[in-house]
Amino acid sequence: MKIHDWFDGPYPARVRIALAEKGLLSRVEFISVNLWTGEHKTPDFLAINYSGTLPVLELHDGTLIAECTAITQYLDVLDGYPTLTGQTPLERGLIHMMTKRAEIEFLDAVSVYFHHATAGLGPQVELYQNPEWGFRMRDKAVRGMRYFDSLLEHRRFVAGDAFSMGDIAVLGGMIFAALVKLPVPDECTALQAWYARMQERPSLREWHSMVERGAPQN
Amino acid sequence: MKIHDWFDGPYPARVRIALAEKGLLSRVEFISVNLWTGEHKTPDFLAINYSGTLPVLELHDGTLIAECTAITQYLDVLDGYPTLTGQTPLERGLIHMMTKRAEIEFLDAVSVYFHHATAGLGPQVELYQNPEWGFRMRDKAVRGMRYFDSLLEHRRFVAGDAFSMGDIAVLGGMIFAALVKLPVPDECTALQAWYARMQERPSLREWHSMVERGAPQN
Repeated sequence: MKIHDWFDGPYPARVRIALAEKGLLSRVEFISVNLWTGEHKTPDFLAINYSGTLPVLELHDGTLIAECTAITQYLDVLDGYPTLTGQTPLERGLIHMMTKRAEIEFLDAVSVYFHHATAGLGPQVELYQNPEWGFRMRDKAVRGMRYFDSLLEHRRFVAGDAFSMGDIAVLGGMIFAALVKLPVPDECTALQAWYARMQERPSLREWHSMVERGAPQN
Repeated sequence: MKIHDWFDGPYPARVRIALAEKGLLSRVEFISVNLWTGEHKTPDFLAINYSGTLPVLELHDGTLIAECTAITQYLDVLDGYPTLTGQTPLERGLIHMMTKRAEIEFLDAVSVYFHHATAGLGPQVELYQNPEWGFRMRDKAVRGMRYFDSLLEHRRFVAGDAFSMGDIAVLGGMIFAALVKLPVPDECTALQAWYARMQERPSLREWHSMVERGAPQN
């Protein structure tokens, strides 16, 4: 399998963490798509993913799967033993709900803030910005942090009793927030405690070490 | 099961069509949440769904599942015979990808256009609008129509050889576009032919007849 991504991107992090959780990292070849030069917006890359986003999974026969949730869903059931997306109908429903909620209320909101109300990827890549919308999404993201904090006061994991794709989506939000220096409110102690616990997982350690190694030379 | 929704809403349509496809309509009690009076933004409803969106599935024990994809995922695997979300890892990955793509490139873009660059649900509900962003999302939605048109030139269904949650998500986009009078470009003949074929499905007929009956009196 190949993964088209960028080594320290927050969305790529979601799939890299999922790969680590599933023990699949050694089966993947990473292909660097340089976000900072806008490689993900070139015609060549748009032919790989119409939406122009990372990451994209490429299978041996050339089949392409974009979108973190879809890639994670595929990877998780490959071995017949899903550990990230749930087994029962209820688990599967709740995990997909919390994953989507983490995106719209937190991760995607941080992303819009970054691309629209900060310098983002720079003037060569950010050809249109709507700062008012960007700041509004920043405020939404902070509300999202407070929401997940309130949730994590009463449960150990985002979608219930076990680590799941929902936790990974909130991790994506935390990773993006740190990149754009959007602080987690001090009073969000449950969210911060959960984040600290997550760092102890081998998958997070593997992700941090991949980031520290920097971008691979293609 | 209860479904909190609004009878002719485009997102509610996705779950109503899924229920009809699965033969589950008779097992559901619909609870009207009046979008036009902003009932989905009241504290009572926000306690049901933090995101303030419809539809929401409520199970017999009070468990709440929001987000169309999550609800459809739950409903589809209830009987152990998924017909909308795929069976193999590859089918499941591709269907989730196309569902998400239909949302971001089409359905959600129409929704932002409606809420930000038209009167939307009216001044009592639309407390903040960003028309520039709304018009930009309108243009994105039209590009999305052209993308799905090009896809449907080469396949009968959105995510491959069989009807799926991906088709339902594009149907949501078509339903919303019709509501806001955003025309499908004339040259999108494959998209229009697919839409006409979809109308022949019993699930679409059931959905149209539910809409014609109007809002139930709670």
